[in-house]
Amino acid sequence: MPVIVQKFGGTSVADAARIRRAAQRIADARRAGFDVVVVASAMGPTTDELISLAEEVSPVPDRRELDMMLATGEQVSVGLLALALREVGCAASSLTGGQAGIRTDGVHGRARITRIECGRLERMISRGETPVVAGFQGTSDDGEITTLGRGGSDTTAVAIAAALRVADAGGYCEIYTDVDGVYTADPRLVRGAVKLPRISYEEMLELATLGAGVMHARAVLFGEKYGVPIHVRHSQRPDHGTMISRENPGMEELAVVGCALKEDLGRVSIRQIKNALGLQGRLFTALASSNIVVDDIMQTEHGSSTMIAFTVDHADLSDAKQIVAKTLLDLNEGEMSIDVGLAKVSVVGVGMKIHAGVASRMFRALGEVGVAIHNITTSEIKISCIIDAASGQRALETVHSAFGLGLGINATVAMQTDSPRL
Amino acid sequence: MPVIVQKFGGTSVADAARIRRAAQRIADARRAGFDVVVVASAMGPTTDELISLAEEVSPVPDRRELDMMLATGEQVSVGLLALALREVGCAASSLTGGQAGIRTDGVHGRARITRIECGRLERMISRGETPVVAGFQGTSDDGEITTLGRGGSDTTAVAIAAALRVADAGGYCEIYTDVDGVYTADPRLVRGAVKLPRISYEEMLELATLGAGVMHARAVLFGEKYGVPIHVRHSQRPDHGTMISRENPGMEELAVVGCALKEDLGRVSIRQIKNALGLQGRLFTALASSNIVVDDIMQTEHGSSTMIAFTVDHADLSDAKQIVAKTLLDLNEGEMSIDVGLAKVSVVGVGMKIHAGVASRMFRALGEVGVAIHNITTSEIKISCIIDAASGQRALETVHSAFGLGLGINATVAMQTDSPRL
Repeated sequence: MPVIVQKFGGTSVADAARIRRAAQRIADARRAGFDVVVVASAMGPTTDELISLAEEVSPVPDRRELDMMLATGEQVSVGLLALALREVGCAASSLTGGQAGIRTDGVHGRARITRIECGRLERMISRGETPVVAGFQGTSDDGEITTLGRGGSDTTAVAIAAALRVADAGGYCEIYTDVDGVYTADPRLVRGAVKLPRISYEEMLELATLGAGVMHARAVLFGEKYGVPIHVRHSQRPDHGTMISRENPGMEELAVVGCALKEDLGRVSIRQIKNALGLQGRLFTALASSNIVVDDIMQTEHGSSTMIAFTVDHADLSDAKQIVAKTLLDLNEGEMSIDVGLAKVSVVGVGMKIHAGVASRMFRALGEVGVAIHNITTSEIKISCIIDAASGQRALETVHSAFGLGLGINATVAMQTDSPRL
Repeated sequence: MPVIVQKFGGTSVADAARIRRAAQRIADARRAGFDVVVVASAMGPTTDELISLAEEVSPVPDRRELDMMLATGEQVSVGLLALALREVGCAASSLTGGQAGIRTDGVHGRARITRIECGRLERMISRGETPVVAGFQGTSDDGEITTLGRGGSDTTAVAIAAALRVADAGGYCEIYTDVDGVYTADPRLVRGAVKLPRISYEEMLELATLGAGVMHARAVLFGEKYGVPIHVRHSQRPDHGTMISRENPGMEELAVVGCALKEDLGRVSIRQIKNALGLQGRLFTALASSNIVVDDIMQTEHGSSTMIAFTVDHADLSDAKQIVAKTLLDLNEGEMSIDVGLAKVSVVGVGMKIHAGVASRMFRALGEVGVAIHNITTSEIKISCIIDAASGQRALETVHSAFGLGLGINATVAMQTDSPRL
């Protein structure tokens, strides 16, 4: 029988009623002829509450001890979910990450899965029992409890699906969350946004890092690497969500599948660099070691003079400024300027690889509505423009409409694809 | 260095402030030259909250899944306690029961410790690190998480002290709780009750089962079996508590060390039994398999007619009545009567073994204040009288004063013993 790995996020297991509903979902899938492995996150705000509790005792809690505490959140929800499954007549047992064979490195707080020892999961499945696995956690080779960091439960689910090779027999991974899929743009910002029935891993990765919070990039990367189809669905509404899978020919009919807006960006620009050799390495190493996440980096050259700019979250701007100032002082050259109140609007689509004119259409559309473009960065399947934050909403709507994203073209494509049905 | 195992109960770790105070306690013991192993219970009402949550999803929760959930309570408190210890400069790491090597049988909800694999604890101690062990839990040989049931954390602490042979090097086990020791009587009931500086395992066992809720009988039994001195202390007050240890010559100077009152008892009496052979076995097997805890059993014989009576908690009385009625019907003999509103007053002391006249002094004292005695049971170190609940308080005060328990005699004995000092 094909295996589905169903992952329920924090809001999907936030109380007894939702847990019962999740159990019903799982029972439905079993009745439809699937074997199911369940992965669950901690209930609602549990993780944040545990972090607050730890910080009451220790302002900067040791990561090993924090992992010991945080892992309990998922342990409670899997126990409850297994109880709810037994109540609806479904043989089920909960497992901690360690019991489920999730082995990680020893980096507490952001451990990486090194392997999954599938024996116990496979034995349970073969005797018709549903394993309910605590997401977000594992154990290191010396038996320490680790957590995987942000997006951890999604990663657990996709990793289990990969390890069990569910795709080989027509299985996949389902991510139940509080949104009903991936949209052409954030529906809270763009009225005409429509849900995408299907998207490629690459597109989803770009959208995830561009601020579309549906799924964490890490789990998508895992899915891409091991070819696990990922179905994103709303836990309360039974309609189809979005299937994330390898690109297929139909996907390339569209140059652009979605657009996104990332707000609250600041920019650091450095001019008058005569001798750029080594500056980039030195500068971005210093930023990384201060845990500053750099959004985009742009470099241009004019004669012997180089100009480098990068964007960061507003929250990191003042730290970034200090680090750059110190680096320039050490090098005794360069001139720094800081801009605040910026945003980034991006379009994404694997079809861009073969469709020409995407960039020009985007720039023209923004120009027509008077949105000034401060910087441009591109990847093979993405074009991003740095603009004033004040123009963000207008820019997103303009781009969304310029590529006809709200016109149901995607809905047509959807009808041609074969989304899994339960 | 001698090792102390310090156990902190739920009220002693109920919030961040108390956790910091517990950490201070531990740091004090280390500064005083002891190695310390810490055992902690779940914070305050956590366990009850988790049980309620489970019952919301499943009215009679599966015990394995409940253990999965309940074990998280202790896991959170040991994480917090380890953080608090690091804040006061004390090297410490938390351990789940499984990580600490606590191996149990597979009976979920009331597992028994089968052995303790001390390797990790010993390695941590030898490098100067304080292990903070989750009480009340362990893992079975196949890696399942189990809980030990009532009194579990006390049992964990005493079992670790036994396995590490702490007594051999002058160590012991400290139980920090919300009472400051064992009293000659419940100080809420008897104004003149005084704290006992020292008590034997046997006496503590009798008192524990007689309704003195300071320590669970199971942990005391463990202490007795492996010769672990157990020091019961109040977690907020630094004064001496009560040391539970093997009886010593000084202990026998006192015929009676304490008295206790157990309330809310009902009694089932059976008369007109002509042929008692086999009745007892049959009857009490039926009661046990319905999980009815029988308090005391008394049997008398007159000629060929036998009379059996037993006491149970009021809560179990109606079930007990039905089981007895059915058994008598099957046997076609006997006559049952039920009494409610009873209590049991008891005196306990190892000195009773050599001091004569204890029983008569107790009966005479009760008679003088008009307390009618309905039944009497005795053990080698205990005398119990079943009386009307309405006379309970008066009976307890009378017995307490008849044996001079409030006169500070024990306090004098205390000065002669060498209680450990920190």
